[in-house]
Amino acid sequence: MIEKVNLAQKFGRFQEYWRPKIAGELNGQYIKLVKIKGKFVWHHHETEDELFLVVKGRLLIKLRDQEIHLEEGELVIIPKGIEHLPVASEEARVLLLEPKTTLNTGNVQNERTVANEEWV
Amino acid sequence: MIEKVNLAQKFGRFQEYWRPKIAGELNGQYIKLVKIKGKFVWHHHETEDELFLVVKGRLLIKLRDQEIHLEEGELVIIPKGIEHLPVASEEARVLLLEPKTTLNTGNVQNERTVANEEWV
Repeated sequence: MIEKVNLAQKFGRFQEYWRPKIAGELNGQYIKLVKIKGKFVWHHHETEDELFLVVKGRLLIKLRDQEIHLEEGELVIIPKGIEHLPVASEEARVLLLEPKTTLNTGNVQNERTVANEEWV
Repeated sequence: MIEKVNLAQKFGRFQEYWRPKIAGELNGQYIKLVKIKGKFVWHHHETEDELFLVVKGRLLIKLRDQEIHLEEGELVIIPKGIEHLPVASEEARVLLLEPKTTLNTGNVQNERTVANEEWV
């Protein structure tokens, strides 16, 4: 049986911020769901482009030379190599699409780094 | 400048059914937007998994042994090789994620096949 994913339901299953959960897998990529609040860390991904789709709330993605303000129903693709800093003043629910090999903090490793893979 | 994609705005830019438009590209995949109404054709994709996310409306994906009813905010991943038939009695707006090489009708070529790549 193939199971569908209800985004609202999946987001209801976890509360912590900045810890992406895997909700699906296709073609070597993961669909991940993450709750965001506050400021992340500046980082980039050497070899992977990354998609952010705002499912609920608002998300600001700062680049070194640009600010991208995302509302519900808006997405952006951050190409590999581009430094970015996700920020949300209120809780935002975000769908990510990344290659399975992607580390959430990219080139940076610190307390925000989530190494183990967790499904929701 | 990196540009964001507002899904509602992009869907407002075209009206025809069953002709996916490219809205973004990452890691060798395309994000496509398609308006669906009526019944498609049974097909499968030899080597590519395919994601359907319902942005507006309802979508039924028939498999040979299962029916998957998707509402707004629900997604499903159809693994490669699995025959499927998308159906929508009313207009549905759907986001697709597929490798760039994917043909919309998969193993079938007919009047529904869209060969050329069109961005929205």
